[in-house]
Amino acid sequence: MRQADVVVAGAGLAGLVAARDLVAAGMDVVVLEARDRVGGRTWTKTFEAAGTAVDLGAEWVAPNHHEAVVREAAKYGLDLALDQTKDWDDADPLDTMAGSEYERALARLDKDAALVAFDRPDWYRAVEHLDVTMADYLEELGLRTEVRQRLLAESFALMGASENDYSVISLLHEVSGFGSARAAFEGESARIAGGTDGIARAIAEQLGSRVRLGHRVEGVGPHDDGVVVSGDGFSVTAAAAIIALPVNVLSQLRLDVPITPEAGRVVAQGHVGRAAKGWTTVAGEADGLHSVGWPDAIEAYAVAGADTSAVAYFGVAEPSHEAALQRGWTALQARHPAIGQQAETLSHDWISDDFARGTWHTARPGQAVGWHELAANPGPFFFAGGDISRRWFGWMDGAITSGADAAVRATAFVRGQEVPDALG
Amino acid sequence: MRQADVVVAGAGLAGLVAARDLVAAGMDVVVLEARDRVGGRTWTKTFEAAGTAVDLGAEWVAPNHHEAVVREAAKYGLDLALDQTKDWDDADPLDTMAGSEYERALARLDKDAALVAFDRPDWYRAVEHLDVTMADYLEELGLRTEVRQRLLAESFALMGASENDYSVISLLHEVSGFGSARAAFEGESARIAGGTDGIARAIAEQLGSRVRLGHRVEGVGPHDDGVVVSGDGFSVTAAAAIIALPVNVLSQLRLDVPITPEAGRVVAQGHVGRAAKGWTTVAGEADGLHSVGWPDAIEAYAVAGADTSAVAYFGVAEPSHEAALQRGWTALQARHPAIGQQAETLSHDWISDDFARGTWHTARPGQAVGWHELAANPGPFFFAGGDISRRWFGWMDGAITSGADAAVRATAFVRGQEVPDALG
Repeated sequence: MRQADVVVAGAGLAGLVAARDLVAAGMDVVVLEARDRVGGRTWTKTFEAAGTAVDLGAEWVAPNHHEAVVREAAKYGLDLALDQTKDWDDADPLDTMAGSEYERALARLDKDAALVAFDRPDWYRAVEHLDVTMADYLEELGLRTEVRQRLLAESFALMGASENDYSVISLLHEVSGFGSARAAFEGESARIAGGTDGIARAIAEQLGSRVRLGHRVEGVGPHDDGVVVSGDGFSVTAAAAIIALPVNVLSQLRLDVPITPEAGRVVAQGHVGRAAKGWTTVAGEADGLHSVGWPDAIEAYAVAGADTSAVAYFGVAEPSHEAALQRGWTALQARHPAIGQQAETLSHDWISDDFARGTWHTARPGQAVGWHELAANPGPFFFAGGDISRRWFGWMDGAITSGADAAVRATAFVRGQEVPDALG
Repeated sequence: MRQADVVVAGAGLAGLVAARDLVAAGMDVVVLEARDRVGGRTWTKTFEAAGTAVDLGAEWVAPNHHEAVVREAAKYGLDLALDQTKDWDDADPLDTMAGSEYERALARLDKDAALVAFDRPDWYRAVEHLDVTMADYLEELGLRTEVRQRLLAESFALMGASENDYSVISLLHEVSGFGSARAAFEGESARIAGGTDGIARAIAEQLGSRVRLGHRVEGVGPHDDGVVVSGDGFSVTAAAAIIALPVNVLSQLRLDVPITPEAGRVVAQGHVGRAAKGWTTVAGEADGLHSVGWPDAIEAYAVAGADTSAVAYFGVAEPSHEAALQRGWTALQARHPAIGQQAETLSHDWISDDFARGTWHTARPGQAVGWHELAANPGPFFFAGGDISRRWFGWMDGAITSGADAAVRATAFVRGQEVPDALG
């Protein structure tokens, strides 16, 4: 006797959306979540020192592009609050020569991105000859230092990884999605009012006791005609499984699941997203702070709290989250002496986090095929998540579309109908 | 000797986007357009009497949903100008009883729309049991007159058709796309600054002499190993054809193209979009006018011109475009006596227009399968257009995604590669 029609591993956005849509389709669903909270790599927490809630993980939405987020917000009556932080006024202006070199680099990105078939699972087909690291791509362009640094800094907000690790086709995919490099770098941005985890919490409330917190999945495999998903002290049998865990944790699991060799390679390698994000209060003045630079405190912005401003700043988590934040703070204070000393801090090390092992998805060269083959895996083992979605992978939007798509496919599978191709 | 790799029939948004993407992929392309202008059912024209440009056809964009439009605007440096016209302040308020009945009706639409798989070509699979006319759906809900009329009026801006003709699953598809019925009805709207045809004109400029105006396609069929597309005094041979014409004109063509029976049925029947849109100047005061009602002058709004306001108003073009506008004007003036007499008018009858034969796509009951089978037609005959696109069909966004997708498929076909499934 199976315990559920579908067992969902992971209560991040993808798993929650999948579970909700499965329930709407009449399926019995169990969701297993290792943490003591839902939301995965979205996590809104009160920063007492500033008197405001801040997001330790995912924070930004591009409302003109992330339609799935817009829809979910509409469903749960959540507002999107526009905030223009990607403001370069604060950066050192480029001189005329550097400025025209910068414009040529943007034009080159636009030209290369025109070959990307953004909406398709095989979006990379026509840019495979460009599948090299960002560092190599920029090297070939032969840019002067300040132009190179500016492009790296602007790209970081999208990529969240080291230029030595990520493939430029990941960036070209973003440029294609936003319509141009300029639009990608300056894209209007918004937050979900009240905190990014609002959607996850609203869905979890709908799902009620179907979501089991503190249940760390350790094994996924076949069982009779279906599947079994198990961990310390529990096992759940079902007709199908949706594995909605960060891909970077899959290699820690006993995954007795047939997947393609390319998919196996991305599971073994993982993605290269390694952003360090820190929040701090300061002794000095930080209201309205916008700052960009390279390679430390790559982007920084202030959020007004009830008591004082909370300042967020970012870097590449090399060699560690803590080291990046320390370098970042030093760099930020050097650029903006008026902010004074660091007071209270708040951050989460997503790289060391056993349930994340990285930040948002950014691919290495040579991986493009594998990610989507994981998404296309046939039943009874379906994979979902922002790491493997079509279209806006790496964003909350991708987690949502991927979860919704996995639900459609798993429902068809459980009903014995033809399982449609993966599209989410 | 073929004259082109791909011949594109129709220089509306779908055909133009397809042609541009084909050229970017290195294809030789010829675009044949019957009219003396590009843009198809988008047409921006100067309304001299008001001193402003107005759109005689497509006008509105939902920027949080129509990502393909946002991207195209970014590509060509066009701005989106927000305008909140779907304002119900002007409508008679519903009393408490009617108000709660209205809320229940919205909740019912939301519940039914939750079954729609918006992003999938087979989006309708789980709502086939609801594939009845809007009139029948509302009849079953047993609503009082003012609630029914309000729902019909709010739906009209999305459907542009008679409630006796269109299937409620077309409306549910929109509700699903926007996230909720309320979001669909009150969706923030924007125009392309400078006129809706800005995108079409920008692409046509890129394509240059590849676009041949005044070339009305009359026949499409096979030729040697490829295709031939012909009309009065011309014929173009190519390896593949993209037929990017309004579906409602296809039955007038000699279409020697194998298509599925379901697709053949939608070609024979056409869609039921029959909106009459008129522009007028008035003798009285119309600044800031927002008005809604049913069944005439269903929606009306004013646009400020250099000289005076231009007022747009809509109705179902039954029995004709002219009759609907006449009834509409009478109704509008009765609701808003301050606008005074009608002065100059400007409109285009899209229903009688031999190159359109209707306004934007809205499907009858029983047609859902056929539209996408037309989009999925294998090479060498590919179909494209806002009538048959996945996702935002009926909108400019759908025309763009469909055209882009047809270009990907036709390129693969011409290169002898495997042709991917239709996704646009």
